[in-house]
Amino acid sequence: MERTPGRRRASRPQRETGAIRQQPWKQLVLPYAPIEVLSKDEVEAIHDAALIILEEVGMRVLKPEARALYRSAGADVDESTHRVRMDRALIAERLKTVPATFELRARNPQRNLKVGGRHCILSSVGGPAYVMDNDRGRRSGTYAEMCDYLKLIQSFDILHQEGGGPFEAMDLNPNTRHLDLYYAEITLLDKNWQPQTLGTGRTIDALEMVAISLGTTREELATEMPVFTGIINTNSPLQLDEPMAEGLIALAEHGQVNVITPFTLAGAMSPVTLPGALAQQHAEALAGIVLTQIVRPGVPVMYGGFTSNVDMRSGAPAFGTPEYTMAAQITGQLCRLIGVPFRSSNVTAANAVDAQSAYESAMSLWGCLMGGANLVLHAAGWLGGGLTASFEKLVIDCEMLQMMAAYFEPPQVNAETLALDAIREVGPAGHFFGAAHTMQRYERAFYSPLVSNWDNYDTWVERGQVTARERANTIWKKVLANYEQPPLDPGIDVALRDYMERRKREGGSPLN
Amino acid sequence: MERTPGRRRASRPQRETGAIRQQPWKQLVLPYAPIEVLSKDEVEAIHDAALIILEEVGMRVLKPEARALYRSAGADVDESTHRVRMDRALIAERLKTVPATFELRARNPQRNLKVGGRHCILSSVGGPAYVMDNDRGRRSGTYAEMCDYLKLIQSFDILHQEGGGPFEAMDLNPNTRHLDLYYAEITLLDKNWQPQTLGTGRTIDALEMVAISLGTTREELATEMPVFTGIINTNSPLQLDEPMAEGLIALAEHGQVNVITPFTLAGAMSPVTLPGALAQQHAEALAGIVLTQIVRPGVPVMYGGFTSNVDMRSGAPAFGTPEYTMAAQITGQLCRLIGVPFRSSNVTAANAVDAQSAYESAMSLWGCLMGGANLVLHAAGWLGGGLTASFEKLVIDCEMLQMMAAYFEPPQVNAETLALDAIREVGPAGHFFGAAHTMQRYERAFYSPLVSNWDNYDTWVERGQVTARERANTIWKKVLANYEQPPLDPGIDVALRDYMERRKREGGSPLN
Repeated sequence: MERTPGRRRASRPQRETGAIRQQPWKQLVLPYAPIEVLSKDEVEAIHDAALIILEEVGMRVLKPEARALYRSAGADVDESTHRVRMDRALIAERLKTVPATFELRARNPQRNLKVGGRHCILSSVGGPAYVMDNDRGRRSGTYAEMCDYLKLIQSFDILHQEGGGPFEAMDLNPNTRHLDLYYAEITLLDKNWQPQTLGTGRTIDALEMVAISLGTTREELATEMPVFTGIINTNSPLQLDEPMAEGLIALAEHGQVNVITPFTLAGAMSPVTLPGALAQQHAEALAGIVLTQIVRPGVPVMYGGFTSNVDMRSGAPAFGTPEYTMAAQITGQLCRLIGVPFRSSNVTAANAVDAQSAYESAMSLWGCLMGGANLVLHAAGWLGGGLTASFEKLVIDCEMLQMMAAYFEPPQVNAETLALDAIREVGPAGHFFGAAHTMQRYERAFYSPLVSNWDNYDTWVERGQVTARERANTIWKKVLANYEQPPLDPGIDVALRDYMERRKREGGSPLN
Repeated sequence: MERTPGRRRASRPQRETGAIRQQPWKQLVLPYAPIEVLSKDEVEAIHDAALIILEEVGMRVLKPEARALYRSAGADVDESTHRVRMDRALIAERLKTVPATFELRARNPQRNLKVGGRHCILSSVGGPAYVMDNDRGRRSGTYAEMCDYLKLIQSFDILHQEGGGPFEAMDLNPNTRHLDLYYAEITLLDKNWQPQTLGTGRTIDALEMVAISLGTTREELATEMPVFTGIINTNSPLQLDEPMAEGLIALAEHGQVNVITPFTLAGAMSPVTLPGALAQQHAEALAGIVLTQIVRPGVPVMYGGFTSNVDMRSGAPAFGTPEYTMAAQITGQLCRLIGVPFRSSNVTAANAVDAQSAYESAMSLWGCLMGGANLVLHAAGWLGGGLTASFEKLVIDCEMLQMMAAYFEPPQVNAETLALDAIREVGPAGHFFGAAHTMQRYERAFYSPLVSNWDNYDTWVERGQVTARERANTIWKKVLANYEQPPLDPGIDVALRDYMERRKREGGSPLN
């Protein structure tokens, strides 16, 4: 038994908070040693297994241009099976040109981002098919709703980057809706944003529009600070399809950052054992990283770890599992071994914004953040295995991210913070509420939550027994109502609209 | 954007699961380096500040017998102010006799527990005033409900120890209800359990009854493997009250384990700065640890870290905050510095079993488990700042604990798990469901959840959109229905009842 704490109250009145209170814009910097799940020897054994896979089994590369690039660099290419095999010397040589750190440009230079080392970028959910909120449940989204979601991403300072479109705007033409998305990403945010990378057309459209937004040209982008991290998924096991190869090549040619992300679900698209799944993930990542360096030596590139496991009883993908956590942290070890910045994700299989969604996200976040991730995609908003972007989950995740950001700021230890004078002043059985040491610091002493309710039970009941999910609903509506659009040069706006209209007249970028 | 995963299904039918699936009984062993929030120098600065506090300010010790013990060991005792001051040499000398590791005896020897080093015990919630479930909300509990809760604690193998009474049985006489609690703890569980330590009477009753249950005597307990970890809270700041001093002395005299736990809420009972709060916590813990070694040199003792912060706007205690996480991990560093096993807790201020309760618990659990805790009290069931024991939170916490236990088992890396043959066999664009490597391992390859639902959205809707909180309700009822009482020698049962009846006739142990 432990004596239950009494709930003493401070004499301080509750401060008024007109807008939401949030932590100020600041990139995360990991202050602790990353968690090492495996020994150095074990990490090297996985790396070695990946090299054997690429030497003996190889990657199936569907795009002829990509195969030609590999061949030009000395890889062994079998045109009848589309199989590309490469030896460890070729890989080691190409890894040498990968930059360990770089910066990413945002429309607002105050929001430029550092990549690599101990720096971490938190990026919003990208790619879901559906949108969901407490009021209307899950549904196909519209462009207007997607714009609302983007406004929230702009408003939460804990999100450093937009993740490539929170959900599909199903009321728009599928061949041109990426243009509307890009226009919204540029005009509703001043943060860095991710392009869609499925095929050359969408990638080039993104490059053209971001160039307009920055007052430059697509051709000049390659000579400047990169603006795009584009997600390139391999088709695990061991295949790179045509649209993804096109996206990869177009991004690399333009000096942009490919985030090579195998989707290796253990037991389905990769071996049921975690080391095997990671060896295969590593092989696929290496193949993609090498290709970027063949296209343009020295172009920045990232390694995306997305290994999770399936439910072996149903085949359903599982996320935020203990296996996911370990896979993320081992991927961090693999990234540090080969010197490539690490991308990970905040994921859950839960369909509701309930306790499961929070504990699976927590397992993900501790996995990637303490694994040394440099980019956390889907850091806020992901629900239901990534098929849904949730308005309430976005808010809950921002709270969890802010808590991790505060945890990443360990206390200063010095005479002032050790507070011996205050302890002497208060003495045994006294209290610290009124001490000068407390009064001078209380306003900013502790993390101030976004969603968490710390009322005692009776107060909580009086105020309507509002749960975290319901509070999140109130919060996003309040934030949306207070959204302020970042300024944009009217000439740039006209140029963006002109480009978009022209491309729509041309038919956009059909996928097939 | 990232391509949304398709939800491939295995051909495997879902296996029948009559009883719940859970991980087998096994103590946790931390396989990773604990997270070090502060540098070695900073940890030593906190230790040094604590020594200065004990030298200059001292502890207020209300019980004359305790003051006499301190005086006998060379401390400076001021009888007019009840102030006990001790120098660093005395403290260093007394720390030398503290055992770094020991074992705890359970009624079932298979459930004996290792304490110290990398071993970790997960213990159920202890001390709340109220009970809560989905069906009836929060209320004062009865003895029958308390027994149900104890049956669940016995049934979940992830819980290694009972935490000292999950909530008060308000239908029983307050002067004797601890006897009924002890009887229930002994007869409904075969796990180790915690006594109530408020005053000599309750502590002696616990010692007598546990001795009966183990076929020994209270006097002989001191010569055997310890059976009790008893929580001793100081009255922060810097005070040890009479009932707690009595409990401490009685436990130590009988060779039992005091868990010295200052309740240092930063900003209220300790400085608003974390290093100051921890310096004071450390001073109070050292004072208590020293007293145990004065009473009985070499008696096992633990250091409980319970530093959290208050909400400076309302004075309400906050739990599972970033400050809590850091405080837990720094306490782990302090414990390793002085060689005393570390106790921590899984805590939240949330009043509902919602996302907040899960993310605050996750922050707590990562704080204590990656901080190297040897005992996690309140590991399952705690809600609402510790005023409530929740049936559903118990289940959710067991899931979170099981996930951490699985995370504490990093994969073996060898030829079989690297699975190169399976990768060769499946090849590019194949799938692993049917591979021999998968078939041989799929049943036990991954963590199998207790509460988590991994259905896709449509299936989840068809099955009634059941949230984690509702699933937890179903699970505890199923587990309770399947509870099996561990066997007990009928002679011991009679002796326990005789003791209890006699003590009830005598009036029990009134608190005042």
